[in-house]
Amino acid sequence: MPWPASVSVQPGAVAIGSGFSVSVSGGGATDGRVTAAVERIFERLTRQTGIPLLPRVAAAGQSATLTIVVESKDHGAPQRLGDDERYSLECSNGRVRISADRPLGVLRGIETFLQLVQENTSSTEVGSKGAGSAGAGSTDAGSAGASGATAAGFSVPDVTIRDEPRFEWRGLSLDVSRHFIPVEGVRRTLDGMAAVKLNVLHWHLSDDQGFRIESKKYPRLAQEGSDGMYYTQAEVRGMIAYARERGIRIVPEFDMPGHAASWLPGYPQLGTHAPPYQIVRGAGIFGSLIDPTKESTYKFLDGFVGEMAKLFPDEYFHIGGDEVDPKEWNQNTRIRAFMAAHRLADGAALQTYFNQRLLKIVTRHHKHMEGWDEVLTPGLPKSVVIQSWRGQESLWQAAREGYQGLLSAGYYLDLMQPASKHYAVDPMKLPQETIERLQKKNAPIPGALTPEQQKLILGGEAAMWEELATAENLDAKLWPRLAAIAERFWSPESVTDPVSMYQRMAVTNRWLEWLGLTQRSSLELMRMRLAGDLPVGPLDEFASVMEPVKGYARHAERYDIFVPFNRLVDAIPPESNGAREFREEVDRYLALPQGQRDGAALRKRLTEWGQNIDRVRPMLQTETLLSENLAAADALAVLCRAGEEALGYLDAGGSGGAAASGGAPGDWKARTQTAVAEAAKRKGDLLIQIAPGVEKLVDAVAGPGVQAPKETGEDDQ
Amino acid sequence: MPWPASVSVQPGAVAIGSGFSVSVSGGGATDGRVTAAVERIFERLTRQTGIPLLPRVAAAGQSATLTIVVESKDHGAPQRLGDDERYSLECSNGRVRISADRPLGVLRGIETFLQLVQENTSSTEVGSKGAGSAGAGSTDAGSAGASGATAAGFSVPDVTIRDEPRFEWRGLSLDVSRHFIPVEGVRRTLDGMAAVKLNVLHWHLSDDQGFRIESKKYPRLAQEGSDGMYYTQAEVRGMIAYARERGIRIVPEFDMPGHAASWLPGYPQLGTHAPPYQIVRGAGIFGSLIDPTKESTYKFLDGFVGEMAKLFPDEYFHIGGDEVDPKEWNQNTRIRAFMAAHRLADGAALQTYFNQRLLKIVTRHHKHMEGWDEVLTPGLPKSVVIQSWRGQESLWQAAREGYQGLLSAGYYLDLMQPASKHYAVDPMKLPQETIERLQKKNAPIPGALTPEQQKLILGGEAAMWEELATAENLDAKLWPRLAAIAERFWSPESVTDPVSMYQRMAVTNRWLEWLGLTQRSSLELMRMRLAGDLPVGPLDEFASVMEPVKGYARHAERYDIFVPFNRLVDAIPPESNGAREFREEVDRYLALPQGQRDGAALRKRLTEWGQNIDRVRPMLQTETLLSENLAAADALAVLCRAGEEALGYLDAGGSGGAAASGGAPGDWKARTQTAVAEAAKRKGDLLIQIAPGVEKLVDAVAGPGVQAPKETGEDDQ
Repeated sequence: MPWPASVSVQPGAVAIGSGFSVSVSGGGATDGRVTAAVERIFERLTRQTGIPLLPRVAAAGQSATLTIVVESKDHGAPQRLGDDERYSLECSNGRVRISADRPLGVLRGIETFLQLVQENTSSTEVGSKGAGSAGAGSTDAGSAGASGATAAGFSVPDVTIRDEPRFEWRGLSLDVSRHFIPVEGVRRTLDGMAAVKLNVLHWHLSDDQGFRIESKKYPRLAQEGSDGMYYTQAEVRGMIAYARERGIRIVPEFDMPGHAASWLPGYPQLGTHAPPYQIVRGAGIFGSLIDPTKESTYKFLDGFVGEMAKLFPDEYFHIGGDEVDPKEWNQNTRIRAFMAAHRLADGAALQTYFNQRLLKIVTRHHKHMEGWDEVLTPGLPKSVVIQSWRGQESLWQAAREGYQGLLSAGYYLDLMQPASKHYAVDPMKLPQETIERLQKKNAPIPGALTPEQQKLILGGEAAMWEELATAENLDAKLWPRLAAIAERFWSPESVTDPVSMYQRMAVTNRWLEWLGLTQRSSLELMRMRLAGDLPVGPLDEFASVMEPVKGYARHAERYDIFVPFNRLVDAIPPESNGAREFREEVDRYLALPQGQRDGAALRKRLTEWGQNIDRVRPMLQTETLLSENLAAADALAVLCRAGEEALGYLDAGGSGGAAASGGAPGDWKARTQTAVAEAAKRKGDLLIQIAPGVEKLVDAVAGPGVQAPKETGEDDQ
Repeated sequence: MPWPASVSVQPGAVAIGSGFSVSVSGGGATDGRVTAAVERIFERLTRQTGIPLLPRVAAAGQSATLTIVVESKDHGAPQRLGDDERYSLECSNGRVRISADRPLGVLRGIETFLQLVQENTSSTEVGSKGAGSAGAGSTDAGSAGASGATAAGFSVPDVTIRDEPRFEWRGLSLDVSRHFIPVEGVRRTLDGMAAVKLNVLHWHLSDDQGFRIESKKYPRLAQEGSDGMYYTQAEVRGMIAYARERGIRIVPEFDMPGHAASWLPGYPQLGTHAPPYQIVRGAGIFGSLIDPTKESTYKFLDGFVGEMAKLFPDEYFHIGGDEVDPKEWNQNTRIRAFMAAHRLADGAALQTYFNQRLLKIVTRHHKHMEGWDEVLTPGLPKSVVIQSWRGQESLWQAAREGYQGLLSAGYYLDLMQPASKHYAVDPMKLPQETIERLQKKNAPIPGALTPEQQKLILGGEAAMWEELATAENLDAKLWPRLAAIAERFWSPESVTDPVSMYQRMAVTNRWLEWLGLTQRSSLELMRMRLAGDLPVGPLDEFASVMEPVKGYARHAERYDIFVPFNRLVDAIPPESNGAREFREEVDRYLALPQGQRDGAALRKRLTEWGQNIDRVRPMLQTETLLSENLAAADALAVLCRAGEEALGYLDAGGSGGAAASGGAPGDWKARTQTAVAEAAKRKGDLLIQIAPGVEKLVDAVAGPGVQAPKETGEDDQ
């Protein structure tokens, strides 16, 4: 994952043992990124396999388990949009070969290779030839396995892959302002991004709640605007180098003129009114704007952009530009006078004026400007790249007007949506909801883009905003769902099957752990904290069918940056696999004709979840941070019982429909539907995600039921 | 943990919320170690509680949740043996106060404070006054809890503690030669050590299998002797600073003249014969010795020790000196001639000659020399510190002769012994085994040391040798057992109850996870690797009653440094809590009079373990690295069944002894005893640690049994 452009699998496999070695040849063999990547192979294979590998790099031409051939070196400049990422990978006859024109392709191919390494199972046919199984490797198995059996150990399957990305710009927009993410967290994120072949980290470095980077020229930006939580320039340079080694560009964003409150405590002259200014502690859209009417603002920004343009080598520079509430401008006499004098009709016009001044500064410092949808106003030069949080309509409109663009709408990981929902979003396809909305309004449905216009769609970016996430659970908010989005950006348009995606995502999710990502372990620690001195097992099982409320609904009664993020809602993944699998199994069960159904497996799960409630309840009663979840426990008990009863009637033949031959007694169905509908509602900040499956089971039982539309937990968004 | 010298607990607690603040005052308030430690409090509390804390350091005298008073600064020199570590800690009236004469005491007190922070339970009485619960803190609980109930959140109990260490030298000897431990691994270890108040990292930097530190003067030591796996001097300096910040001294060890094979590939002139030399890949005692007869050897060592003495500021310098097999010397004509000329009767005499030359060098570079037992030979100056791997007899003998000493015998964590076994070892008490051995030989039992001699026992060091451990599972080999040893070194001699120790160790073990230690998560990842694409749950449960074979018995058929460490035996903790608790429960059950026994809980556990075998078996059959454990699964099934049957008879009143009123049919007991004895034997590299408990149950059933002595798994050591 992401699935390659072309794959063919053959029987057989290449053994990976302690004799594993690599050779590198071709004009690009001495490229720094290639040699660093080769070193990392050994470390990572050691972690993946538990075999202590010596870094054996064979001379070019010498026989090795993995041969890397790279045609030529990189251009010397920073990685650019459109740099060649193609590679091919061939495993056969006991050897692996990665070929690429450029170092970037080698990096992508190595990730594919590492992802293919798997433990042998009894059915693995490992070839007897080849370097991987030679030497010390052959005795790796220790005492296992009689002769004739597959050796204990690891291998990659025989396979031929030709691969290249669908989109050139495959990014993650990472907010480090609302909650600061320390250096290690960003590095881990880069590791994961490289593993799934993303190539742009869009680093959202300033917002109302914090200015997260040191400026040597304007030191008070970070000093007064960050509570001491910011990156030094040395750390930033280190991060850029780290990203580059992994084939990832870093595009900085400094959001202006809105979302700018954190600039102002240190430099109040940038604002519209007299000091004092304070960093914002809440979340939302705030009024503290930069004053676009003063010449001194542009002098400051020229100095600042110039400094940052030197620090960040990437060709693109993101100026934000989103969500400006012009109230503060409109209420200011001086600014109103300026607008009148310059014939600027409203706040939007003033923002366009600001953007055009800013564009000149950005351009003078040799960068392409990038901004969110709102920067697209009449007269905007075509060199600006539009990042769309509004959707395909907005993105396509920009393309029709000749602007390059990126899609972020539909890829907001902080909204806690299931991976399948993001996976279904394609920058090149109008979503069904959009079409329906337009049809309802009798508005025209946008036609397809021309091939020229299509080329302007550079790709997309997932977005992770940090209002409701912290450094502690960041990984769990990103992974594994980001892998599904990465596949959307890399793989052919035709790769869309969510069933296959979920299967492969589960494997990828485990694989990512070897990189040190903490999506599983960090949440487990958080649950251990909640469990206090009690064993965490029952809480884990209880939580396994829960999901956080969607969108920004968590903890609505208090909503600021210093709220503790230590509740059960913070300690569970955005998507419950257990609940999803249960719902899928319900669908399969109900799809079978009556008489062929066997509800034993479903019933077993419900019984286990139900019995676990008695184990978890004492903990919910004792541990103060857990007590708010007692209502969810009660509701889960109702759902489990209802589901078990429904299965009893259905197995016995009491299916709904014309052929019903049994059925539940009296008012069971109506009574149960009412109880289940109540239990299915949001409980605190938790959704019990087996509820829709249970509802289907109850509805399928024969007998008179309730007619009213049911509420199945939280609506999206 | 470690338990303080004096504790008294009162009802009540101090709330720890998002208003938490610290003030520091006294002559030592600006000491670098104190200010760094205060910064870490906020980070660590954030991790422990999930509350994003701003680093609020109040001015001296201002009201704060935690007040730190430190009398005076440190002496400027490196931390020294005997530096004052006393502190007192008082929690009452909503405030916490740590007082200490010196910064080191503050560090120790902060660890105690952090360890006291716990989630409120429904019975916590949090005081209503005080800074901790003021301001934003009071709404932390979010929606939880009706008024009157304990607020959801965290607190420290009201308590008065006066604390100081029993021993001045409380160390861990860490081998990084057999398997290299990267910088992060050593840092994590230092974090954990500081948390349990250990104060010496004895860094075993060279051995036959690798020379792990850069020498600028002799660069080929690391270049040719480490496979590229070594610490640069910059890394070492960073580590020393990191340790110092945490109140830990670092004592380097360079093992000479044996265990020295890794010196020789780069500098063969140090050896006894002509090149080539190679790093040793196996494990054990090897012949490659330094040649003590050449003057050039001492010139080299003077240069090397001089360089290292500058790099490591500690006053002590460990020269190893253990396990010299003099064969290589005795077989060398030139060396034999030297020995004859200098009247050196044998290898031991030659080693003494070497040690005395080396001692002059070490002394010239202003260090105290330290060595293992073997360096103690007649004529050794009293300034040398003896580290005893042989035992109290040897240590006490050294003390009687006037040498300072440390005990390491009994504290070898790599032997996979239970924590209780290490916990029972006391440097000041002769072990029962030693007494019995001496009695058997009719040898005199050493009398108590005089108070003067007792003072020469500086403390002890746990030892972690890395033949059978890797960077991946290091944490699990160290933790939590090292916490029990740390308590032995810190706490009063009278603190010896293993039941209390195990209870507190479980809490400490969880607490250590917030420091980033990976004793749980790393093994879980290893088991996930073994489980391949299958869910790991059944493997976890199966493994939960297993322990690795003890001592150095693992993987005896192939025993070198590049053996994969990816088998189930490598992925389980040295001590099974589940099995220990089962055995304890069996003892409690059998201690009850017949008729009062209820085996339901025991039977339930056995049933669950037994049923899980059917879930884990397909995995053992499919995954090649797991197939060697099928025999253990079969044996576990036998044990579970036998235990369940025995409980059935016992519950029904069939207890052994005179009062037996029932009993098992016919030959059940003898047959089952035989089967259980077979199942209890080592299975591959695993021990099924519920076996002794099951054996007791079966033995307790009335009826004719087997008389033969039983084999209960592996003998210790």
